[in-house]
Amino acid sequence: MKRRAFLRAGLAGTVAGGAMLAAPAVHAEEKFRWRMTTSFPPGLPFYQSGPGSAEWIVKSIDEATNGRLKIKLFAAGELVKWNGGFDAVTGGTVEANSAVAYYWSGKVPALQYFGTVPFGMSFQGQNAWYYHGGGLKLWNEIYSDFGVIGMPCGNSGVQMGGWFRKPMNSLADFKGLKMRIPGLGGKIYKALGVNVKSLGGGEIFPALERGVIDAAEWVGPLQDRRLGLQKAAKYYYTPGWHEPSTTTELMISKKAFNALPKDIQAVVRQVAAAANIIAHTSAEALNGGALKDLVDNYGVITGPLPKDSVDAARKTTALVLEADAAADPVTRKVYDSYMDFQKRHTAWKDISETAYSAYVSGS
Amino acid sequence: MKRRAFLRAGLAGTVAGGAMLAAPAVHAEEKFRWRMTTSFPPGLPFYQSGPGSAEWIVKSIDEATNGRLKIKLFAAGELVKWNGGFDAVTGGTVEANSAVAYYWSGKVPALQYFGTVPFGMSFQGQNAWYYHGGGLKLWNEIYSDFGVIGMPCGNSGVQMGGWFRKPMNSLADFKGLKMRIPGLGGKIYKALGVNVKSLGGGEIFPALERGVIDAAEWVGPLQDRRLGLQKAAKYYYTPGWHEPSTTTELMISKKAFNALPKDIQAVVRQVAAAANIIAHTSAEALNGGALKDLVDNYGVITGPLPKDSVDAARKTTALVLEADAAADPVTRKVYDSYMDFQKRHTAWKDISETAYSAYVSGS
Repeated sequence: MKRRAFLRAGLAGTVAGGAMLAAPAVHAEEKFRWRMTTSFPPGLPFYQSGPGSAEWIVKSIDEATNGRLKIKLFAAGELVKWNGGFDAVTGGTVEANSAVAYYWSGKVPALQYFGTVPFGMSFQGQNAWYYHGGGLKLWNEIYSDFGVIGMPCGNSGVQMGGWFRKPMNSLADFKGLKMRIPGLGGKIYKALGVNVKSLGGGEIFPALERGVIDAAEWVGPLQDRRLGLQKAAKYYYTPGWHEPSTTTELMISKKAFNALPKDIQAVVRQVAAAANIIAHTSAEALNGGALKDLVDNYGVITGPLPKDSVDAARKTTALVLEADAAADPVTRKVYDSYMDFQKRHTAWKDISETAYSAYVSGS
Repeated sequence: MKRRAFLRAGLAGTVAGGAMLAAPAVHAEEKFRWRMTTSFPPGLPFYQSGPGSAEWIVKSIDEATNGRLKIKLFAAGELVKWNGGFDAVTGGTVEANSAVAYYWSGKVPALQYFGTVPFGMSFQGQNAWYYHGGGLKLWNEIYSDFGVIGMPCGNSGVQMGGWFRKPMNSLADFKGLKMRIPGLGGKIYKALGVNVKSLGGGEIFPALERGVIDAAEWVGPLQDRRLGLQKAAKYYYTPGWHEPSTTTELMISKKAFNALPKDIQAVVRQVAAAANIIAHTSAEALNGGALKDLVDNYGVITGPLPKDSVDAARKTTALVLEADAAADPVTRKVYDSYMDFQKRHTAWKDISETAYSAYVSGS
C-alpha cells in the first residue's frame, strides 16, 4: 500500500502533466458519407450486430474519424439482396459491402481461398497467411481488376459440421442425403454422393423443418441458434471441416477509398483488423454457451461426424483443389501460395498451439 | 471476361462517384506529443520492431491521426531500464509503456493473469476472455488505482519450453538444474526442484554460454534466435506450458489518455487491437521458418519436454494458482473469472479448433 500511495503522489505531483500541446493547426476538413451493404440478415449476431460486426465497424470508424467518415449500413435485402453486394460496390451503387469472399467465387474461382478452405488453415494460420504470407496481396491483385479492395474483418473460427434430421453413423448414410451446403464444401459432398442444395440463410429453416432437405450447415452455435435450426433437426455434428476459418470480408470501392485522406484510410484499415480479432473472439466467447443452451434446452444431440465420412471428404478435397488449380492460372497461383504457407505454418503449429491444446484439452 | 468488362463500364459510368462531400468544417486541432518506453531491446522482432510491434503501433497512430498524436519511442535502457516502465508511466515520466503485465506482478500478484497463465488459455481463449469475458475490465479495475489503463497489443502464442545444454529425459533431470525462468513458471519449476534464476533478456546468452545456468526460456524461435541462444545450448523443447499466450500490454497514463479528444482515444484502442492480431500472426508466420533455420543451420535438436515433467508441472500449477488465490482477494476475483471462462471456452474449443487441428495435424 505504501508503494501505491507513493505512486499516486508521484502522479499528482507532476507539474507538466501528460501531453505537451503544440500550436493548434487550423484547416478545412472534408466529410465523407458512404453507404455499405451486407450479405447478412438484420440483427444476425457476429456478422451484422454485436462486437466486431458490420454495425461495430461503422460505429468505430465514425468514432475514430470524429464523424468525418459516416457510413449508412444496409442489411441483406434492405437495398440489394444478400448476394448483390459485389455488383453494388463494383457498379458504384454503394461504397462498401461486407460478406464472405467465396460468395463471389462464381465470378473468380480463386476467391474461395479468401473465404475459407476445406481442411485448410484455421484462424491463426489463415490470418498469418493474409497479413504476412502474401494472401492479402493476392486477394487484392484479383480485386484490382474490379476496382475494389478487400480485407478481412472477422472470422467465424472452426464452424460446426451441420444439422441432420437423422443420426449419421457412417459415410454410407450420406448417399442421397439432401443437404444444404454451398461452395467447395458442397462440391465435395456432391462427389461423395450427397444431393447438394443451395439455399439462402433465411430459406434453411423452413426447408429443414418441412423435410424438403435432410441436413444443412450454416455457421456455428451462436448464429445457427438465431435461425432456429435446433427446432428443425436434432443432430448437430462437429467439426466443420468444410469451413475451418471463414473470413468476413470488407470490400471497398477503390475510387471511394482513394478519395479519402490518408488518415481516414489508415483508420479504415486499423478498424478492419481490430474487427477481425474482436469478432472472432466474440464467437469464441459465446459459442460454448450457445451450444450448451442448444443441448440443455432444445434436446440437441452433438457428436463428431463419422470418421469415414471426414476421411473420404479429406481425400476428395485434395483432388478437387488440385483439379481447380490445374484448370485456372489464377487459382493455381493462389493455391500454390496457400498450400506452401499451410505446410510451413502447420509444422510450427503442430508442436506449439496444437500440441499444447491437445494436452490441456478437457481441462 | 464479359462480366468484368461490364463491371468496369458500370464503375466508369457512375457519375456521382464514390464519396459525397459535405461542407468542409474548419476548426482548431490540438497536437499531442507523448513518450513511450518499452521493456524490449532495440530491434527485437515482434516486440520492438516489425508488424504489430511498438514501432508499428507508434507509426500506425501517427498515420491514423494525421500526426495529431506523435509518440517518441524508447527501447529498454534508452530512457529507463527494461523493468522501469510501470514506474515511468505512473510517475509521469512517460505517457505510455509496452511490456508484459506479469513484470508488475511483484506490485499486484493478480497481474500475472494479464500476462499469461501456465496451462491456461492460448491465443483465442485468452483474448476472448479479455474482450468478451470480463478480463479487460478486471485488468483496468486493478490499474485504475495506479492512474493507468492497460490493453492487449500483441500475443506471442504458445511459446517454446526452453533451451537446455543437456538432453532432458525425465522429471528427475530437472532436480538441481540451474534454469532461467521468471514468474509463475519459475515458481512451479522451483517446486519441482529446479534451481531457478532470474535474468534480464540480455543476460541470458552469456550465462547460458558460460554454463552459469544449464537452461533458459525466453519466447519462441523468432525472438530466441535474435538472442543467439542456439549458440549456447542445443536442446530446444516444446511446448511452453508456462507461457501459452503471453500478452503484450500497452499501458497508458489515464491522465494523458483522458486529455486526448475522443477520436484519438478511439484510434489508440483500435490500433492496439489491430496490433494484437497483426503481431500474433507475424510470430505464427515466422516461427516455423526460424525453427527450421535453427535446426538446419545451427544443429538445434527439438522435441517434446519429458511427459512426466509436464504432468508434474500441471499438478503443481493447479496448487500454486489456488494457493495464490486463497492468499489475496484481488487474485481470487481474477482467478475465479479466468477459470470459469477457461472451463466454458475449453468445452467449445475441444470440439472445434482443437479437434479440427488435431485431425489435420501433420498435413
